[in-house]
Amino acid sequence: MKLSRLGEFGLIEIVRRSTPKGQGVLLGIGDDAAWVKSRFGSLLITSDLLIEGIHFDLRWTSFFALGCKSLAVNLSDIAAMGGKPAYLLLSLGIPKDFDSADIKEFYRGINWMASKSGVALVGGDTSAAAALYVSVCLIGHAPYRPVSRRGARIGDDIYVTGTLGDAALALQLLRSKSPRPRRGHVAYLLSRHHQPTPRIMAGALLARRGLATAMIDVSDGLLQDLSQLCKASGIGAVIWQERLPVSRAYRTLAGTNRMRWALTGGEDYELLFCARSRNRRRIEKLQLQANVSITHIGTCVPSRDGINVRNHADKPSAKKLQGYDHFKEG
Amino acid sequence: MKLSRLGEFGLIEIVRRSTPKGQGVLLGIGDDAAWVKSRFGSLLITSDLLIEGIHFDLRWTSFFALGCKSLAVNLSDIAAMGGKPAYLLLSLGIPKDFDSADIKEFYRGINWMASKSGVALVGGDTSAAAALYVSVCLIGHAPYRPVSRRGARIGDDIYVTGTLGDAALALQLLRSKSPRPRRGHVAYLLSRHHQPTPRIMAGALLARRGLATAMIDVSDGLLQDLSQLCKASGIGAVIWQERLPVSRAYRTLAGTNRMRWALTGGEDYELLFCARSRNRRRIEKLQLQANVSITHIGTCVPSRDGINVRNHADKPSAKKLQGYDHFKEG
Repeated sequence: MKLSRLGEFGLIEIVRRSTPKGQGVLLGIGDDAAWVKSRFGSLLITSDLLIEGIHFDLRWTSFFALGCKSLAVNLSDIAAMGGKPAYLLLSLGIPKDFDSADIKEFYRGINWMASKSGVALVGGDTSAAAALYVSVCLIGHAPYRPVSRRGARIGDDIYVTGTLGDAALALQLLRSKSPRPRRGHVAYLLSRHHQPTPRIMAGALLARRGLATAMIDVSDGLLQDLSQLCKASGIGAVIWQERLPVSRAYRTLAGTNRMRWALTGGEDYELLFCARSRNRRRIEKLQLQANVSITHIGTCVPSRDGINVRNHADKPSAKKLQGYDHFKEG
Repeated sequence: MKLSRLGEFGLIEIVRRSTPKGQGVLLGIGDDAAWVKSRFGSLLITSDLLIEGIHFDLRWTSFFALGCKSLAVNLSDIAAMGGKPAYLLLSLGIPKDFDSADIKEFYRGINWMASKSGVALVGGDTSAAAALYVSVCLIGHAPYRPVSRRGARIGDDIYVTGTLGDAALALQLLRSKSPRPRRGHVAYLLSRHHQPTPRIMAGALLARRGLATAMIDVSDGLLQDLSQLCKASGIGAVIWQERLPVSRAYRTLAGTNRMRWALTGGEDYELLFCARSRNRRRIEKLQLQANVSITHIGTCVPSRDGINVRNHADKPSAKKLQGYDHFKEG
């Protein structure tokens, strides 16, 4: 079967099924990061691939921003397991006619984000290539039991950190090429697109206190990632559309189809997690310490009810559950 | 400066200089693998990038062989530090029109090599791409003090495991398109090209017994990798050309320019290491346990003498010290 028919998630499923569970593997393929035993402690490992023309566009992404983002998306995966990021490997495929000054800028972005998050760049590989390829592998410690996608139960609350849709709306603005001034709200959205803030502290606090029953980071869009969490946990979900946290900039610039990017836009790199309803107070308190807002956006229901987005009239709105699949035709 | 002028090693040097040494990093950028502290033990981490049209050619490489090789080159890096490989992450950029059967074959190769070497595939990423990109990150344990490239001293012996030049000569045969029968010697060379044997046991024994003063794996060609080791250790080297170990198949098929591929051909994935001359006997004995031949091919000299290849008349032969640089024009 052609990959364009099978799709990304079909491919991952094939890989997962054909891979034997190895020695020392506590949690293998299919979560934000793998969780493995090392000789005495345990580790979280994740990797991501960013490809020019697919994940980023050098017409509107600076090399510095690309460096920041390449690391941030991996930090977000470790955050979503409640881990502490530590070591970074970076492999680059680079077109021969690139200037070394550009690559220096890229590494400046990497090092800036690395020092902010206490991560050390320890190795990698470089090669010539037809387009710019960035492959990041990030290793973290798991001082507390990692939070997988699997533990949510019917009746659990559903939360999300920060605000949704900023990055996707920014991309829309960049693509529309309209000569908006890059300040105020536009500048805010662009910064959210170019320099996402991985929620490392929030993730670690949730793991440390055992508050999150399941967690995932929002990278492919809220509904897509929620459906991954629901599938892994064997539950359904109801999301209250009017509760979705959006920024002032988003509210101002989103126009008519207002919730579109918050629901299905990707690259938010916020945390989506579930928690027992008895812990609502403790979750609320966590916001201060984690230095990020946390919003109660829905509830877990039986899997037969699927995933529903309800508007203010409490009627399910017909949201098409669609995220980004790299192999499917657009 | 354009990368085509700066070159791969110039680029790596820029990255190395601009990267702060992070917390817990025992050995950072510039060796076969990074050596880092984990909470209680220590780890070795390495990554490699394999790109269609640069590192492999699907006209003569099967997907199974590509899977084997993608993992083997990383296993070889861990072997060259004396480590024990454990966990694998695999990121793939795949053209949309590929067939899922091909990707299954690739993963069959990965899993075959993984089970042979006690490695578990624990995660990764997939994306659509214009060509096939394979990015591997491999994590290993360091039960003994890892062997870096830095510890060789003047007077040390220089050794290499197995035989040299088989893989490079095989590539030459594949490229020449001559209708040779793919059996006997040709088949042997092709198997050395497609399914290299990482010398994990030899590397681990050398580390465990503290016998190797410096070690590197031969991936870019003997002279190129020797020069890396010499540079890191601050020494020079004399190599005796007639001592270079080559296979029967190589001797039969190499033709007139006989030592060319053994000296400068890449992808051998053998171990090149130095040891005190008083340990010659112990190194000899190691061959049986490691199940690979180990050949004494040269000696370490002062760095001002550079790297010399001597022929049987004991005169330096004018070998051009050249390995593969991805960014330099061919």
